[in-house]
Amino acid sequence: MRALVYHGPAHISFDRVPDPVIEDPTDALVRIDAATVCGTDLHIRRGDFPEVKPGTVLGHEAVGEVIAVGAQVHHLRPGNHVIVSSVSACGRCPECRDARYGQCRGGGGWILGSLIDGTQAELVRVPFADHSTIRRPHDVRLDDAVLLSELLPTAYEVGVRNGHVSPGDTVVVVGAGPVGLAAVMVARLYSPYRIIVVDLAAARLARAAHMGADAAELPGRMIGELAEGRGADVVIEASGDPDGFVLCTRAVRSGGHIANVGTHGRPAVLHLESLWRKNVTISTGQVDTSSTKWLLELVRFGRLQLSPLITHTLAFDRMEDAYEVFAHGTETGALKVVLHRT
Amino acid sequence: MRALVYHGPAHISFDRVPDPVIEDPTDALVRIDAATVCGTDLHIRRGDFPEVKPGTVLGHEAVGEVIAVGAQVHHLRPGNHVIVSSVSACGRCPECRDARYGQCRGGGGWILGSLIDGTQAELVRVPFADHSTIRRPHDVRLDDAVLLSELLPTAYEVGVRNGHVSPGDTVVVVGAGPVGLAAVMVARLYSPYRIIVVDLAAARLARAAHMGADAAELPGRMIGELAEGRGADVVIEASGDPDGFVLCTRAVRSGGHIANVGTHGRPAVLHLESLWRKNVTISTGQVDTSSTKWLLELVRFGRLQLSPLITHTLAFDRMEDAYEVFAHGTETGALKVVLHRT
Amino acid sequence: MRALVYHGPAHISFDRVPDPVIEDPTDALVRIDAATVCGTDLHIRRGDFPEVKPGTVLGHEAVGEVIAVGAQVHHLRPGNHVIVSSVSACGRCPECRDARYGQCRGGGGWILGSLIDGTQAELVRVPFADHSTIRRPHDVRLDDAVLLSELLPTAYEVGVRNGHVSPGDTVVVVGAGPVGLAAVMVARLYSPYRIIVVDLAAARLARAAHMGADAAELPGRMIGELAEGRGADVVIEASGDPDGFVLCTRAVRSGGHIANVGTHGRPAVLHLESLWRKNVTISTGQVDTSSTKWLLELVRFGRLQLSPLITHTLAFDRMEDAYEVFAHGTETGALKVVLHRT
Amino acid sequence: MRALVYHGPAHISFDRVPDPVIEDPTDALVRIDAATVCGTDLHIRRGDFPEVKPGTVLGHEAVGEVIAVGAQVHHLRPGNHVIVSSVSACGRCPECRDARYGQCRGGGGWILGSLIDGTQAELVRVPFADHSTIRRPHDVRLDDAVLLSELLPTAYEVGVRNGHVSPGDTVVVVGAGPVGLAAVMVARLYSPYRIIVVDLAAARLARAAHMGADAAELPGRMIGELAEGRGADVVIEASGDPDGFVLCTRAVRSGGHIANVGTHGRPAVLHLESLWRKNVTISTGQVDTSSTKWLLELVRFGRLQLSPLITHTLAFDRMEDAYEVFAHGTETGALKVVLHRT
Repeated sequence: MRALVYHGPAHISFDRVPDPVIEDPTDALVRIDAATVCGTDLHIRRGDFPEVKPGTVLGHEAVGEVIAVGAQVHHLRPGNHVIVSSVSACGRCPECRDARYGQCRGGGGWILGSLIDGTQAELVRVPFADHSTIRRPHDVRLDDAVLLSELLPTAYEVGVRNGHVSPGDTVVVVGAGPVGLAAVMVARLYSPYRIIVVDLAAARLARAAHMGADAAELPGRMIGELAEGRGADVVIEASGDPDGFVLCTRAVRSGGHIANVGTHGRPAVLHLESLWRKNVTISTGQVDTSSTKWLLELVRFGRLQLSPLITHTLAFDRMEDAYEVFAHGTETGALKVVLHRT
Repeated sequence: MRALVYHGPAHISFDRVPDPVIEDPTDALVRIDAATVCGTDLHIRRGDFPEVKPGTVLGHEAVGEVIAVGAQVHHLRPGNHVIVSSVSACGRCPECRDARYGQCRGGGGWILGSLIDGTQAELVRVPFADHSTIRRPHDVRLDDAVLLSELLPTAYEVGVRNGHVSPGDTVVVVGAGPVGLAAVMVARLYSPYRIIVVDLAAARLARAAHMGADAAELPGRMIGELAEGRGADVVIEASGDPDGFVLCTRAVRSGGHIANVGTHGRPAVLHLESLWRKNVTISTGQVDTSSTKWLLELVRFGRLQLSPLITHTLAFDRMEDAYEVFAHGTETGALKVVLHRT
Repeated sequence: MRALVYHGPAHISFDRVPDPVIEDPTDALVRIDAATVCGTDLHIRRGDFPEVKPGTVLGHEAVGEVIAVGAQVHHLRPGNHVIVSSVSACGRCPECRDARYGQCRGGGGWILGSLIDGTQAELVRVPFADHSTIRRPHDVRLDDAVLLSELLPTAYEVGVRNGHVSPGDTVVVVGAGPVGLAAVMVARLYSPYRIIVVDLAAARLARAAHMGADAAELPGRMIGELAEGRGADVVIEASGDPDGFVLCTRAVRSGGHIANVGTHGRPAVLHLESLWRKNVTISTGQVDTSSTKWLLELVRFGRLQLSPLITHTLAFDRMEDAYEVFAHGTETGALKVVLHRT
Repeated sequence: MRALVYHGPAHISFDRVPDPVIEDPTDALVRIDAATVCGTDLHIRRGDFPEVKPGTVLGHEAVGEVIAVGAQVHHLRPGNHVIVSSVSACGRCPECRDARYGQCRGGGGWILGSLIDGTQAELVRVPFADHSTIRRPHDVRLDDAVLLSELLPTAYEVGVRNGHVSPGDTVVVVGAGPVGLAAVMVARLYSPYRIIVVDLAAARLARAAHMGADAAELPGRMIGELAEGRGADVVIEASGDPDGFVLCTRAVRSGGHIANVGTHGRPAVLHLESLWRKNVTISTGQVDTSSTKWLLELVRFGRLQLSPLITHTLAFDRMEDAYEVFAHGTETGALKVVLHRT
């Protein structure tokens, strides 16, 4: 098959590689219909994740059709259409028993496209398949479904739920990339008073306003007003930047929540000399994908309209281009770039 | 009257000053029977709180007897014995209506011995007296009661409650000073599996073990084991030191809580490059003293034995000595130093 | 002044009575601009509340203008426009300190139009005025504001919040009267999957559908399907009828919530022989009006459109008619009947 | 093998029956070392559970040794010592994924000794064995372990946790049988102010006092005082009697919790005519056994001492006697009767 292979820092290519096979009796093989590129993939390409070894097929978001299952897969059969979860879950360890799949200690967690071959390929081996896929109903489009592999669960679980967004809240989202904008969409389900999006790129700000943010601006006046005034009830960090995080700690009100969603490569400064008396709660987290089914239903009921999050669709053989388009979002305007099998 | 006055960085003295008077109709005058010195007072003496002006009487913990009340004080009368709360509460602003007295926006909050004259004196003017004092029952001793002004509510509200201590938990307390040890006492109410206290001073570690910690040690082996292994369910930062905070982020388990109780004068490093995927919750906070009455009942019922927290009792005229004894706790073995009127 | 006076079971009349005066220094006198009739008033008229003595002026919902204040009222002055809360709060007792104003033990709670003269009058004496009124901004209309005295806080606090309505939920509301329909409005803020309203009157069902319910029907097919199938996540009892309550216990799913909002005059049967294994949570409650300010902001932001809840507006001198119109809602189609000063 | 068989209402006998065999690949066979009799078994014997068919082996609590496993059992092997959970869990349905095993929709739930043959036997077939057993460490005694099959998890999950027992609380437990007394033990982990046990049998009251209740009495004075006064923070219904439930609704304070643990065969009266304004929360529930591992650790750490709950130990061949001893607890003083293999 053909797949997007990581060859070490800054080197990826769309290569011909051996097809995956069933290795464990809980595996399934899935033929990918659509996949997408995540900000974390760019981190890997840059070499920020030394645990990802050269030769690994990247990608952890996909939808496709099951073509084979191991002897201990009980809930899937060839022909089923599934969403592949970015998080694989053994389903048996104490963390999984507690629905904390992202922290699975039984061999799962975020391993696809990281510790094992991933989804930017024609075929993928999905471990613990019963617990690591979700059936895609006929009435959910491929392009919506692929955003449920990771993006929407992350925006909800790590951003909106950890941040305790409630009706009437002032919500600040720092970073207008895909996950920040997905957080705007999900936060709107809770009828906040207003959502303020902060970013450094004017084009992204324009789009944030178009997608339902009540205000969108460069770091500046509004953050200053929040810092001087009552502050925001909830601040969602979706930039992955240490300065973005510091901005969050300035904007939040006493008693408010900061929910870190961004993937960070460097430490941030925590201004405990002022925060110690401010009564704030800061949460970090990797997605568990425990909310996928619930989000899927919200998409089906029409409560979430995901299409504005997808700006580019390309054929599989343009995977390398997809990385370029996505990496240069400021110029290309890219949010999610979806790859379709052809 | 005589009172402990701050004259600028490193200068305090026990001086003769004018008696306080009722200024606002919601004030009460309290004749102090016992007061104590807090770690924050040492910070003020050092000059770390520029908002404290020279000439201010220090102190925010005390018990005493009401000797006069303003026209709008309805629930106190001369002769009542009261615990003076370290936090003054207007009782009317949105924060107070939500029991978040420490964040009072109606003129209260932590102002005693900071923005107005405090309790290390023979007399103190208590603003918003109805909302800022609690009656001391006859069966609660002076020395127990003075620890309810701030120390115990802080240990409970900011440490144990924010940290969500639960039966069976592994709890780490960083810093074996008064607030850390008070946190040990309160945490024991929830039947944790074990409480591990970490400190740099061997004498304090010995005492922590004596006071109910299951283990007490220098930063080292156990923290290393926690960092490598499953980690602690709850970590309470009570050292006020940036390195202490970093220790907390290493010791906590994924899904666990870090509750910062320490008063910090400098920023700490937040290692988001590893924490972003660890699912931790970090809380900061200043006490609200909303739990004082509940803690008072626990003392009365014999569920909390506070006397081990008091190592020294001195007469009022030795207030300057009290600061020295308390500031050099490593040598003097001081935890709380209580001052008694003579 | 003129006021609606209760003279014993089934006897009310709009009489000339002495003007109220400031009795306690925390009182305010308010000249009523708009008042309304509540289902509880009908219960009182029927004689269901023996604690209401003949001679009492009824009513506990109103907006108006402050015309005089007692010496200890600090936050109101003549000329202020206020919403009179149905719940009076002393602001000092342990319950009030915990924002549980409806359970005030300092002389407040629901006393207006019950233990003391109420708001269906030209003037009302409001006790504990600082804690029992909320300022009405200029941009909030009289008719919207009067629904914030009690109706909306009840629908939110006792129905939606106690019931834990969440995005994606199936919500059943039993009873399509004003409080049931207000609960529909507030529940929609949380983006439930669907809201099913059940009532015995076809006209009310039609209106429920018009006002945002996803389905509206007689007790029957859908409840049967819920009882046989997975069940509803949240059931809000707003009928005040014992059979309505039993319906709730059939419709709720295992693990779901029943929030009782209805005012009941008789016991209901609790089918513990089946419920003991069903893992349900049942809550009851009287409103605290702790959410009024928050709801007021939601009205101002346009998140809640209250006008469909008001079907009739009458002049003050038609108060007796208002009771008739409201009591015969099935024929008159009445939801809230608002009385305006003329 | 020999087993205790239900032959229809009032007829049980210890019979010779065919040995169970592995039927499904997720089954395990366990040779029982100790079993016990539950109040629910008495209900079954009486005929209260028509879904239990004549010929069924009763019992759902046991510890033993695995002697065979099906092909899809991955975490057990012959020779392992296990606690058999009273609740079988498929581990895959939405309820199980949410740790709500008692409500399993994949073929599990409480089926042992009810829909399939149970544990009062020499051998038992345990379905979904990976998810329905827990390993017994060597340092946990048989007699302690058998109480972890159901009794302790029920007391904790359905009583103490659903009731939100907290330090300083007044807790009332209605019914001093095994589950009520187990609730006393677990509630003490949270340092309540006092636990009041109410029962109709003087001998059980004496034992409750001996086992850590602060007060134990017939329904009467203390309940009356609670009903007149502030009321209890938490009331745990452990009698299974409709009158016991009504007592709970009288004793609870406004804002308090009633946690129903009792197995009820008849409806109770819910006095909504007074409760509608009392702000109470009532929960019902069947155990999930999601807390078993946590309780097991508390037993190992010495935080829970279970031996006082066991009053009788008999050999397997006296199973019929065990029912008699247990059923006549008032005369025999029986709490848990444990049966040992001989």
